[in-house]
Amino acid sequence: MEFGSIDEQLAYLTKGCVDVIRPEDLKAKLLRSAGTGEPLTVKVGFDPSAPDLHLGHTVVIRKMRHFQQLGHRVVFLIGDFTGLIGDPTGKKATRPQLTPEEIAANARTYERQIFKLLDPERTVIDFNSRWLGKLSSADWIRLAAKVTVAQMLERDDFRKRYEAQQPIALHEFLYPLAQGYDSVALECDVEMGGTDQLFNLLVGRQLMRESGLEPQVVLTLPLLEGLDGVEKMSKSLGNYVAVEDPPFEMYGKLMSISDELMWKYWLLLTDRTEAEIEALKTGVATGQRHPMEVKKELAATIVTELHGPSEAAAAAREFEKVFSNRQRPTDIPEIELPSPGARSLVSRIVASAGLAGSNSEARRLIQQGGVRIDETRVADVKAEIDTSPGREYVIRAGKRRFAKVRFIDTT
Amino acid sequence: MEFGSIDEQLAYLTKGCVDVIRPEDLKAKLLRSAGTGEPLTVKVGFDPSAPDLHLGHTVVIRKMRHFQQLGHRVVFLIGDFTGLIGDPTGKKATRPQLTPEEIAANARTYERQIFKLLDPERTVIDFNSRWLGKLSSADWIRLAAKVTVAQMLERDDFRKRYEAQQPIALHEFLYPLAQGYDSVALECDVEMGGTDQLFNLLVGRQLMRESGLEPQVVLTLPLLEGLDGVEKMSKSLGNYVAVEDPPFEMYGKLMSISDELMWKYWLLLTDRTEAEIEALKTGVATGQRHPMEVKKELAATIVTELHGPSEAAAAAREFEKVFSNRQRPTDIPEIELPSPGARSLVSRIVASAGLAGSNSEARRLIQQGGVRIDETRVADVKAEIDTSPGREYVIRAGKRRFAKVRFIDTT
Repeated sequence: MEFGSIDEQLAYLTKGCVDVIRPEDLKAKLLRSAGTGEPLTVKVGFDPSAPDLHLGHTVVIRKMRHFQQLGHRVVFLIGDFTGLIGDPTGKKATRPQLTPEEIAANARTYERQIFKLLDPERTVIDFNSRWLGKLSSADWIRLAAKVTVAQMLERDDFRKRYEAQQPIALHEFLYPLAQGYDSVALECDVEMGGTDQLFNLLVGRQLMRESGLEPQVVLTLPLLEGLDGVEKMSKSLGNYVAVEDPPFEMYGKLMSISDELMWKYWLLLTDRTEAEIEALKTGVATGQRHPMEVKKELAATIVTELHGPSEAAAAAREFEKVFSNRQRPTDIPEIELPSPGARSLVSRIVASAGLAGSNSEARRLIQQGGVRIDETRVADVKAEIDTSPGREYVIRAGKRRFAKVRFIDTT
Repeated sequence: MEFGSIDEQLAYLTKGCVDVIRPEDLKAKLLRSAGTGEPLTVKVGFDPSAPDLHLGHTVVIRKMRHFQQLGHRVVFLIGDFTGLIGDPTGKKATRPQLTPEEIAANARTYERQIFKLLDPERTVIDFNSRWLGKLSSADWIRLAAKVTVAQMLERDDFRKRYEAQQPIALHEFLYPLAQGYDSVALECDVEMGGTDQLFNLLVGRQLMRESGLEPQVVLTLPLLEGLDGVEKMSKSLGNYVAVEDPPFEMYGKLMSISDELMWKYWLLLTDRTEAEIEALKTGVATGQRHPMEVKKELAATIVTELHGPSEAAAAAREFEKVFSNRQRPTDIPEIELPSPGARSLVSRIVASAGLAGSNSEARRLIQQGGVRIDETRVADVKAEIDTSPGREYVIRAGKRRFAKVRFIDTT
């Protein structure tokens, strides 16, 4: 990737960012780096206990990649300091301490995922227990002396909890300090995180300044909406695309987003520049491009990066076959079910085949017209089919779930 | 000292106390100690940087002594942990760190003073850096997790500062935790302090409970009023009696307090029981005893404890001579002053001889009728005397300050 001017670099690095503190400092650092050939150090912290990444996480990982594309060095910092000591809040349900082995295993899981996007040559995976674990009592007192209680209570979530008289354990005030100290220890040039991390990132800036270091530049990135376009993407809400989702599932999920949300995904989940994205938008607005085609390009771009071009092409062909041409996919899982007798409710079979999470979800799907048997829509929630041993059906639930079900005799 | 019952012991140990948390716990501890023969451990913390003690400090030291008299063990704990790291607040005027040598020297100064009242056999002098200095990062996080921010902000001084938008550095929240951890480390049965220490002492109780230890009993003692009967006794206000004041000065200062304040001093600065003090009060109220005589008994009691019985007796005789009989003391300092010429203002001479802090204080003294020259009261602030070389006067300023002044030729 070639970027002629520092201003072009600055635009690329800050595209999609919410806070940039401060652009002129980042420009100065880029200029100095260009002059000396010394790459910038860019830090992002990650939770040591939950290494399953979805596309929401890749927004900042992709931003790390942008810095790498311009020759800089990124530190993928696993915050194992807290993991090693366990979360001490809540005496009844204390979060168990992670063992060094578990932390190492989680780090390997991270590696497997992030190196789909990051260049291993320009990535340092580090652990903050290396320096935080070594701080002495005196170090902690000195560190705590650098911030005020009022400053901590200005942090949005702390302030809300304090005003609502919800308890804030005192050690929670120490974590932003610990995170800030990471920046001192690493002498970071840049730290990035979600917009909810702004306060912590600024503490790092403050501690670096007070330690006589040039303060880090702070970049925050928006929290990505999930497939529903409303809630933040999260595993628990089910509106996510996992980095390790298989190609066809990933492609199909991405095709399900709204045309409006698509532009945000283009901005935050691809390396396209803002100018390039504007050109696509113009194409759609003037009718030169169909939005569905542009969305397919988005899905293919993302699947290509995470799985490779041939997997993306196969997913696109499969998608055409199933949805655009209303054909069945080539690779339908075959399931054998014990015959429940001569006849049985379709809803029960849908649930037994794993195509719905429960009988009630299966009934809802049927009511919504989302269940087909051998490509015939099931119209009635009370519909029954012949489930004698030897009978076979292709059942489809929703747009993308298929199963070939065969009833067997288990008597 | 003999105390028959546990209830008598309890009354003696809690006499003069403001908070006793909780009397039933103290009683249980006393009973258990009586049963097992194992003495209680009683802790009081002291500032490592200011080892000059006055009678205000002896209120709690005397309470330590009461525990010793009943066979218990006291820990005179020097809070050198903060002294060793220096007070990190206020970057412009950081309090210098104390060296280990300075802390040791201050400890010796403390010893010299406290062993006037305490039994060295039952006193442990300890330093909290021994355990606080060894806490790890994880220990600090766990410790901080045991209290909430709201709880800290309930402490009176913190709350006032927060509401007045005065900065509270975060490490100030760590000190109560450190002090509380001292109690855990020492497995204290009792901790005592001034009423301003109540919050910190209760944190110790809480941390002990959460560490699975029996919580310490907390006793607080009132802050003693100085000689003026209004302000808290303090060196900077000048209303104090130092533990190391010479006998006659100490005796005289104590005789200057009001009849009302005398009862508080009896309660807090002697070992008399409340019953004994009540008997004295009744004696005065019924006219059997003159208040002045009871005050002399108080002064003699205190001077005896701090200097010995013969020194107290000599101070009492000297006091009678000077004040009661309006004679001069036997030991008047002799001062030679350069003759300022043939005549000079009395006020200037009083100041030059060090009998007043300034010319204006000297003038005030004259106006109040407090200055005598050769036992003749000086009536006029503009009075002059012959200050030719060779002239000599005995000058008296206030009740107790004397000087024999001789003018000499320095031309």
